[in-house]
Amino acid sequence: MTLDNLSTLRDTIRDFAQARDWEQFHTPKNLVMALSVETAELMEHFQWLTGEQSLQLNAQSRTEVAQEIADVLIYLTRLADVLDIDPLQAAFDKIQINAQKYPVEKSRGHNTKYDKLD
Amino acid sequence: MTLDNLSTLRDTIRDFAQARDWEQFHTPKNLVMALSVETAELMEHFQWLTGEQSLQLNAQSRTEVAQEIADVLIYLTRLADVLDIDPLQAAFDKIQINAQKYPVEKSRGHNTKYDKLD
Amino acid sequence: MTLDNLSTLRDTIRDFAQARDWEQFHTPKNLVMALSVETAELMEHFQWLTGEQSLQLNAQSRTEVAQEIADVLIYLTRLADVLDIDPLQAAFDKIQINAQKYPVEKSRGHNTKYDKLD
Amino acid sequence: MTLDNLSTLRDTIRDFAQARDWEQFHTPKNLVMALSVETAELMEHFQWLTGEQSLQLNAQSRTEVAQEIADVLIYLTRLADVLDIDPLQAAFDKIQINAQKYPVEKSRGHNTKYDKLD
Repeated sequence: MTLDNLSTLRDTIRDFAQARDWEQFHTPKNLVMALSVETAELMEHFQWLTGEQSLQLNAQSRTEVAQEIADVLIYLTRLADVLDIDPLQAAFDKIQINAQKYPVEKSRGHNTKYDKLD
Repeated sequence: MTLDNLSTLRDTIRDFAQARDWEQFHTPKNLVMALSVETAELMEHFQWLTGEQSLQLNAQSRTEVAQEIADVLIYLTRLADVLDIDPLQAAFDKIQINAQKYPVEKSRGHNTKYDKLD
Repeated sequence: MTLDNLSTLRDTIRDFAQARDWEQFHTPKNLVMALSVETAELMEHFQWLTGEQSLQLNAQSRTEVAQEIADVLIYLTRLADVLDIDPLQAAFDKIQINAQKYPVEKSRGHNTKYDKLD
Repeated sequence: MTLDNLSTLRDTIRDFAQARDWEQFHTPKNLVMALSVETAELMEHFQWLTGEQSLQLNAQSRTEVAQEIADVLIYLTRLADVLDIDPLQAAFDKIQINAQKYPVEKSRGHNTKYDKLD
């Protein structure tokens, strides 16, 4: 078993939910709310920091932030699973689309949204 | 190259940002905001649906939802990268913690938060 | 002093921040993050409930939900204040726009987004 | 009729929803999701800005931000209405609680969360 693998994570979460009979709660609607709540818990660590400070977390913050990143990944993986969507494939496909929307020459060094690139 | 691999995704995103000189914008503070915005775009697809309807998306919605899941995974992976956190390792570690917080016997069939389990 | 008044709330929050020398943290960027975090804390109360259950909160939940609604309103009012935007005027203006986007005849009884109304 | 009044806003929104037969969609669960989506649309305007830049929006951005603030206030008011909670009363009550949690002397000039104030 390799841990560098989203499929293994998906199966582990699936077993976790099944063992607790939690599948009944895991509709996409509920899971996307849980995902959003976890994302906010992650964001809370950064809300009063400057950009620079956000790059220099102390050890305690780093540990907490890692756990919140974990929670976001867990719910995202579970949501994709119940929708039967492969999140990694979707991500690689989306990067192809983004490469079209943000050509290197037009996008370099600024953050203009694609629909406002001339 | 295998696609079932978050490390490959991380490197692809890293190259994408570097080619566009976007690293200057990719502080954790900014990235967590972008992650939160993408999570909301994903949530928007489900806001007026019942739980049951959220399980029966039509083809058009499924495609759009897959792209939003992709965006969330992309920003989450990028955020973890700039923080030098391994998101998969963090997720497996967190599942161990969750297994302690939610013992099977006490958690089966209900969604009580761990701090309210007797 | 009337309490049914957002201007009074705005001034109260302004004094609160000034007394604690918190104005330095109250950039729009930081405040919108705090607003988003509070919105998620409000959402957390509803994530595992059905629509029907969400209408029947017990007394304890109602008290907690009221406090989260308060936090959202406080940060929204503060954000509008530092941006010098009148939120009530903006809301009444927006309702006029919404009335154009969602004519009664075309919108009755369904939740189709305005850009998909034929 | 005065516009500086959340009760008038509440009633206007209530009439708007009733005229379109939208009450069926306005469960607290759905409304809190809509609130969260609007909050993210507001946040999107600030995600790549520095704190300083977020204080200096151009005219176009200000107009768009005002409309997003409006949407957040509209959904928050509607959510409080269906829950029969007075949001202004709740906000003033919460400020009393916050004043206890954040005494002026202990809180001045830093953003430490109340549970970490010594």
